[in-house]
Amino acid sequence: MEFQYENSFGVKGKIDQSKIAILPIGAVEAHGPHLPLGTDNILAERLSKKIAKRVNGLVLPTLPYGQVWSLRNFPGSIHISNRSLIAFLVDIGESLYKQGFKTFAMVNGHLGNQTALKEAARELYESCPELHVFYFFYPGMNKAAAEIRDKNASHTTYFHADEIETSYMIYLAPEFVEMEKAPADIPDIPAYVDATPVPWEDFTGTAVLGDASIATRDKGKYIIDIALENIVNILESFGEIE
Amino acid sequence: MEFQYENSFGVKGKIDQSKIAILPIGAVEAHGPHLPLGTDNILAERLSKKIAKRVNGLVLPTLPYGQVWSLRNFPGSIHISNRSLIAFLVDIGESLYKQGFKTFAMVNGHLGNQTALKEAARELYESCPELHVFYFFYPGMNKAAAEIRDKNASHTTYFHADEIETSYMIYLAPEFVEMEKAPADIPDIPAYVDATPVPWEDFTGTAVLGDASIATRDKGKYIIDIALENIVNILESFGEIE
Amino acid sequence: MEFQYENSFGVKGKIDQSKIAILPIGAVEAHGPHLPLGTDNILAERLSKKIAKRVNGLVLPTLPYGQVWSLRNFPGSIHISNRSLIAFLVDIGESLYKQGFKTFAMVNGHLGNQTALKEAARELYESCPELHVFYFFYPGMNKAAAEIRDKNASHTTYFHADEIETSYMIYLAPEFVEMEKAPADIPDIPAYVDATPVPWEDFTGTAVLGDASIATRDKGKYIIDIALENIVNILESFGEIE
Amino acid sequence: MEFQYENSFGVKGKIDQSKIAILPIGAVEAHGPHLPLGTDNILAERLSKKIAKRVNGLVLPTLPYGQVWSLRNFPGSIHISNRSLIAFLVDIGESLYKQGFKTFAMVNGHLGNQTALKEAARELYESCPELHVFYFFYPGMNKAAAEIRDKNASHTTYFHADEIETSYMIYLAPEFVEMEKAPADIPDIPAYVDATPVPWEDFTGTAVLGDASIATRDKGKYIIDIALENIVNILESFGEIE
Amino acid sequence: MEFQYENSFGVKGKIDQSKIAILPIGAVEAHGPHLPLGTDNILAERLSKKIAKRVNGLVLPTLPYGQVWSLRNFPGSIHISNRSLIAFLVDIGESLYKQGFKTFAMVNGHLGNQTALKEAARELYESCPELHVFYFFYPGMNKAAAEIRDKNASHTTYFHADEIETSYMIYLAPEFVEMEKAPADIPDIPAYVDATPVPWEDFTGTAVLGDASIATRDKGKYIIDIALENIVNILESFGEIE
Amino acid sequence: MEFQYENSFGVKGKIDQSKIAILPIGAVEAHGPHLPLGTDNILAERLSKKIAKRVNGLVLPTLPYGQVWSLRNFPGSIHISNRSLIAFLVDIGESLYKQGFKTFAMVNGHLGNQTALKEAARELYESCPELHVFYFFYPGMNKAAAEIRDKNASHTTYFHADEIETSYMIYLAPEFVEMEKAPADIPDIPAYVDATPVPWEDFTGTAVLGDASIATRDKGKYIIDIALENIVNILESFGEIE
Repeated sequence: MEFQYENSFGVKGKIDQSKIAILPIGAVEAHGPHLPLGTDNILAERLSKKIAKRVNGLVLPTLPYGQVWSLRNFPGSIHISNRSLIAFLVDIGESLYKQGFKTFAMVNGHLGNQTALKEAARELYESCPELHVFYFFYPGMNKAAAEIRDKNASHTTYFHADEIETSYMIYLAPEFVEMEKAPADIPDIPAYVDATPVPWEDFTGTAVLGDASIATRDKGKYIIDIALENIVNILESFGEIE
Repeated sequence: MEFQYENSFGVKGKIDQSKIAILPIGAVEAHGPHLPLGTDNILAERLSKKIAKRVNGLVLPTLPYGQVWSLRNFPGSIHISNRSLIAFLVDIGESLYKQGFKTFAMVNGHLGNQTALKEAARELYESCPELHVFYFFYPGMNKAAAEIRDKNASHTTYFHADEIETSYMIYLAPEFVEMEKAPADIPDIPAYVDATPVPWEDFTGTAVLGDASIATRDKGKYIIDIALENIVNILESFGEIE
Repeated sequence: MEFQYENSFGVKGKIDQSKIAILPIGAVEAHGPHLPLGTDNILAERLSKKIAKRVNGLVLPTLPYGQVWSLRNFPGSIHISNRSLIAFLVDIGESLYKQGFKTFAMVNGHLGNQTALKEAARELYESCPELHVFYFFYPGMNKAAAEIRDKNASHTTYFHADEIETSYMIYLAPEFVEMEKAPADIPDIPAYVDATPVPWEDFTGTAVLGDASIATRDKGKYIIDIALENIVNILESFGEIE
Repeated sequence: MEFQYENSFGVKGKIDQSKIAILPIGAVEAHGPHLPLGTDNILAERLSKKIAKRVNGLVLPTLPYGQVWSLRNFPGSIHISNRSLIAFLVDIGESLYKQGFKTFAMVNGHLGNQTALKEAARELYESCPELHVFYFFYPGMNKAAAEIRDKNASHTTYFHADEIETSYMIYLAPEFVEMEKAPADIPDIPAYVDATPVPWEDFTGTAVLGDASIATRDKGKYIIDIALENIVNILESFGEIE
Repeated sequence: MEFQYENSFGVKGKIDQSKIAILPIGAVEAHGPHLPLGTDNILAERLSKKIAKRVNGLVLPTLPYGQVWSLRNFPGSIHISNRSLIAFLVDIGESLYKQGFKTFAMVNGHLGNQTALKEAARELYESCPELHVFYFFYPGMNKAAAEIRDKNASHTTYFHADEIETSYMIYLAPEFVEMEKAPADIPDIPAYVDATPVPWEDFTGTAVLGDASIATRDKGKYIIDIALENIVNILESFGEIE
Repeated sequence: MEFQYENSFGVKGKIDQSKIAILPIGAVEAHGPHLPLGTDNILAERLSKKIAKRVNGLVLPTLPYGQVWSLRNFPGSIHISNRSLIAFLVDIGESLYKQGFKTFAMVNGHLGNQTALKEAARELYESCPELHVFYFFYPGMNKAAAEIRDKNASHTTYFHADEIETSYMIYLAPEFVEMEKAPADIPDIPAYVDATPVPWEDFTGTAVLGDASIATRDKGKYIIDIALENIVNILESFGEIE
């Protein structure tokens, strides 16, 4: 159920019944020639709807801007600082808590947001101790991606517009993928990228961190389904779903 | 053109050609029994698309959360503080400026945001002096509404889910209006509401500030068309449109 | 009674008896050739004394600096940011609350302060929920001025050093008015001034927004008396006056 | 010359000629039974006028609120945090600099403000490196007071409503002094007061830190005249006076 | 060379010659019964000295407090918020830059600090664009630890007071290790720990995340030597070492 | 007892028994040709250990960075802003309070930190009202130094790397003093230094504010012993020592 299309007369009952608010959050960020700038928003939104169905959650409007420091100089990227993002998310969480929600599940489509989401969750842990706050970024995907991918990843934790993320899009939002433009770009990411600030234009011209041309719907489905199950299981283990 | 569905390879040229970024901004806020919580988002978005067509602008993803202090205790409302909202908008503006935009036009669907938008515009005036920043809230609507409305307003500056805003929705997004539920609620707003913080539950149970049952598509069209012309004229007067 | 001329041995009893603290707040800002930079301070102070008499209030020392972004480039203007002003006012309010006051009435002589005053009042609403906080800016003046003015206003909400404000001064502080210098300046304020940051030097060289030469004591008295009654009525309606 | 009674048409020339802005700053704070709450404001203001005459300075409106942590629980005290006070003063300084002033001389009547004034001066040192910023608190008074006082001080650096400050008032503002109520209160201030936060109600019921009954106009004049000379000399040594 | 034992007359030449400032940073945090609270400080310090020898760097005094949210409730842990830590590190970095350093290498002994260090590095990237800022946390250790460890890790990214970290200590600071107390504690860390704030007392009583009893000097040496080489290589690749 | 060399299994009992946490805090700052940059850290640390022995306190790791605005341009100085320093210290204090400490005694070796320490103590007074917070800077040293010194001080409150501080070092840490380099530098400090920001390079090339060549162990011992007794007495008077 999409929260913003409810009206305030009916929504109270639905909040009381569901108690789970799901916030899709992504970014506006360069994703190569074959994927749109809003890829992370689209993914977060589609995955959130699947989660909502499973856990009887209410899907909030997508927060479509995120922290994209690394790619902020690529055409079309819009960067929000961690500080601003954290403050915004804490405000949302505190409002949800006052509205009667018991769970605030952020469904994140953009790795760069994870720092802000975690920090916001910790601030809410102090100000709303009874609210369960989650920051899901495809839980279990590292293991699942290792099993399914055909080419090695460019980097142990980063993935971007590559075999994996493109597969997510083919599975969840194929109408936004232009596979004929998908590059087989596997940049050589220097080791120091984990130890000093490096804008990604230093090592890639496409913003694609892997061979996007070998992405498939099946690969996307395999990982997304695992992530979905993990999310549902975690929410269930917290007793949020009856 | 919707910005987030562009890809980064094509978007640079479009930015250079248009130079106008349009940000719809609204809120999640109670709007009575006949309008959805996301009314202000929907209005901002639809109006933004009309503006974009006229001025060859690029429509950014909607920022769907706003400052709703007055109605924050109504079911479904989500409140963002001015401080957080300002910081977020300044980040967006600075990114747009670095991306090459010359104009950042915020199209606001929620009066409560106007303070934050104005302040953000002033901060950007310092940090990005060459960027033109606008915060449009239906320019000209006060005069136009006075001409067209059948019943007096409850308040000189506030309007909410009433004859006027409901008319906007019938014109711009009729599929979200349930006219059969539209109340003829005209609360008695105390004079001190302009001089001290007053949560609106003190004087209304519906969040509707006027007779919504007499809203019509024509009234909405009349005002919105005037606002649209005013916006286009202002952008033209700044030389942003060729 | 002026608060700062009391001593701490006698003041406790007076606080307990009155419970109403009145803060005049204005600005140092260009007001044309015929009015002093401190016009808003003088007006706020004189009006505050009239209020105090009526409601048995205690008048705090005037806070003589305010937010004057629009005229900050005119000779003599001193600009305080909203952020600084809000923080300062919140500190004052919290102290008053700890001192035993039940009402903190800010009497504002400068429209540009209104945003900060409202925000400060909302912050105090959270931190001192039992303190009544007011931000009065000549309540009722819009209607009264429309009745009494001889020439149309340059702008629907702004008024500055014009027929109206000059009349206030002739009524409340004639010794500071040099009517022989009063200009009949009616600038053409562009419509976009409500939608983008515009320093006022763009459309006026005098900082006078109307024909000051037709100001009279009677016009000032008419509006100020109405504002005074409105303020007294609001304070009475909150049960602050016995 | 009092700045706020100038008008904006004449003030530019006066700024250019004088280049010295003088800000009296004090506090609203308990000063015993014989002195008013606004003692520090009155002193700062009267001393500022003397300085202005000597150096052809322009006296800004008094900032009448300060940091009074130690006495904040005494009746009538109003406390501003250092953070708020610093921000406010930096805004004033930056405005003065843009207005063309070369010197911003804060004349402080309240020791508790000195930390904030010094910090504000250091921030302005970065943002307006060409502005000379001063924070004068009776320079030379320690030596002069030691010479003139009849009883020992309660504390090496604190003085408050005592022999010394009461003498200042008799000299500069005798109309506000009620000598018949002046207490001979010499509290025993514990040594740890310099090493841990101690609200002054722990060791005094009057807020008077010394024998006020032996204050005289001559003692006040002796120290104030020295302080005045020191201030004038310092301003001259910076080449601010021609 | 330890920076703080230099004097200011000799240090300028050494800064010019070395240009590399090395900051050890750790934490005060529970590390089980066999390791001291300051384990991360000791490790960061000893590793920093090894680096300094190789790259002719100057070792700054250890910053011995860090972000220990997860273990903050264990006896002896002292927690610094990310916000405070970031601000502190940015100040250090800006001072080093003004002192003439070209490289600021933070050598981190505590994973929980990594978020703050990365953010501080990004802030310095804006304010001191010519300063190279690094945040080293045993680069290459994940791969090396996988090769050398005898038991599986409890968690893919966390390691704490376990086989690995205890080995580091036996190698670098054996005098602080009490191996006879080293527990073989392998807690079952729930999967949701990566998706919601979880204080570690929820799943461990010892704060030890693995079998510390099988730690050896050789294991420690193997990983630390790799990390040391990686750090030296990265610094060399930036041309910081001649 | 040094806190960071305890382990978390034993430390709880020691906290409960002692309840006094001692934080040495100094700075990295130019101290002339004869004393190291870390002089204030070394002094704070050595004095802290003496205090700990007397009051059964636990000595935390030294915070080795402080506010050194005045000498920040001298080689080797590292400057932390008051804002950052306050935030950091408040975090430490709040953690100590949660850990069960009843007293947080900051032992300061650097006068420039005193403002931040006092402000941090006042913030903790609000957030942890039951925690006793102290900021000791050689209590009693002014009187004692006046008795023992052979040459007059350059300034009434500043002392730096001079007869006095060098004597402290000869007493507490002689291995770091190079007396053969100790200058007899007595700069002429202008009176305005107390009234406007003055970087010390304006009046000294050595950073030494007095004749360091006449420093002796006995002078240091005389003052330090008095300061130590005063600290112990204050802690005893608060009932912290049994």
